[in-house]
Amino acid sequence: MTIETVSTAKAHGGTQGVYRHTSAETKTPMTFAVFVPSHMDGERLPVLWYLSGLTCTHQNCMDKGEYRRLAAELGLILVLPDTSPRGDNVPDEKDNWQFGSGAGFYVDATQAPYAENYRMYSYVTKELPEIIAALFPADMTRQGIFGHSMGGHGAVTIALKNPARFKSLSAFAPIVKPSIAGWSKPALTKYLGADEAAWRAYDACLLIEDGHRFPELLIDQGAADQFLKEGLMPHLLVEACEGTGMALTLNLREGYDHSYNFMSTFMDDHLRWHAQRLG
Amino acid sequence: MTIETVSTAKAHGGTQGVYRHTSAETKTPMTFAVFVPSHMDGERLPVLWYLSGLTCTHQNCMDKGEYRRLAAELGLILVLPDTSPRGDNVPDEKDNWQFGSGAGFYVDATQAPYAENYRMYSYVTKELPEIIAALFPADMTRQGIFGHSMGGHGAVTIALKNPARFKSLSAFAPIVKPSIAGWSKPALTKYLGADEAAWRAYDACLLIEDGHRFPELLIDQGAADQFLKEGLMPHLLVEACEGTGMALTLNLREGYDHSYNFMSTFMDDHLRWHAQRLG
Repeated sequence: MTIETVSTAKAHGGTQGVYRHTSAETKTPMTFAVFVPSHMDGERLPVLWYLSGLTCTHQNCMDKGEYRRLAAELGLILVLPDTSPRGDNVPDEKDNWQFGSGAGFYVDATQAPYAENYRMYSYVTKELPEIIAALFPADMTRQGIFGHSMGGHGAVTIALKNPARFKSLSAFAPIVKPSIAGWSKPALTKYLGADEAAWRAYDACLLIEDGHRFPELLIDQGAADQFLKEGLMPHLLVEACEGTGMALTLNLREGYDHSYNFMSTFMDDHLRWHAQRLG
Repeated sequence: MTIETVSTAKAHGGTQGVYRHTSAETKTPMTFAVFVPSHMDGERLPVLWYLSGLTCTHQNCMDKGEYRRLAAELGLILVLPDTSPRGDNVPDEKDNWQFGSGAGFYVDATQAPYAENYRMYSYVTKELPEIIAALFPADMTRQGIFGHSMGGHGAVTIALKNPARFKSLSAFAPIVKPSIAGWSKPALTKYLGADEAAWRAYDACLLIEDGHRFPELLIDQGAADQFLKEGLMPHLLVEACEGTGMALTLNLREGYDHSYNFMSTFMDDHLRWHAQRLG
């Protein structure tokens, strides 16, 4: 297991690093960012996974997420993976921001030619955690997960399928039912095939319908989000959670859009949510 | 006086806007960012000017500066100008990041062909303040100024020349003696001519030598800053302030570099410094 350090800088007393490695899952170089707060020698800190949205790399949240000050104070490691494999050898639709590069949707593709590289579910849940556990001062018994938009979808579906691994879950403006939303349905078709049964494993509402549970979930959603009614539809997740015993806190935030202006505003609330549950 | 709204978004309860107008000083379109905290109807808030460094536009600090949360709490308007005129008709050296576009050095150029457009001193101290006063809920009797690197140079020199206008001054890793630093001396020569007497009006150390004063000044400087010894040399400002009655607080911060990782770490300290003095 070798990774290359792309950059490190001291920030808010800790270290903001960017790293690159060759992924066995995606068969491409993958870049990710990790923030490690100041800590004692030998100390291991809880790990909070942040999954980004369509078009993003590790860098968007690293630049605009405004997480370092409070993560440093709370003692949380933040891990920011990329959103897809990338490279000249990776099948892509260059002019389509909702598919391919920057749009991995956190699935393991089963369809040619995408199955070879588009394995973001396994990358984020298996390969990258092994790297984090081995090379960073991480306490892997204390993991939380959150994300934004497509990354909110990733966080919620991954937590629903791995409830024993994660102690905390939240999302900013998540896609809650990608099987019906216009910006995700074509991608699921191409990655997973036309048989919608295969999509159920990557759809938060359908996972809950199929019996998956996570005890509690915080969602912030901008009420002025341009994607609210067509792409995000958080009311469907509220409906899906009803009667399941899952505790959902949904904050509809007046005037906020879909951007990092929204997300960074509520970052502190989410970091505190996770820190309280990660101990 | 007309300005175009490029974008606005709600952030931390306030409004992060980006605006464009045609500048009479630079004879080009100029873009700037303004953050206005939530406030009562008719209320006017103090204004804090943030001047950016080499290569930057309004956007670098807007994205990475992490100022909105606390500026909202403290009730400070932040104004982020661009660092130079830009455009195909503006004389430039495309491959030189230390001159021309992104490198206006906050001077009014006197030399052809730069004198026509490179009027960033007048733009920042006269034209843009009139716009801010007219179109934003700004209390122009309460203004502070700060900046980073070349923008730190801009903030200190502008405050020294306009001590009655500004109630507070600080800088992150400022260029304190541009007349001798390698990355600024060629620019001053091209903007102002070979006669170094003309440079004194844009050099913090020399302005102090010539009798300009500002009562107190906060500087944070990364001790691991790659530009510390050759380009920034804060000890020269310490020396210049000695015996003048100017109160200089210089914090040398172990391990920090020149980037926004450094600047954003100490943003809260600087916002509080200004808020205390702006009332």
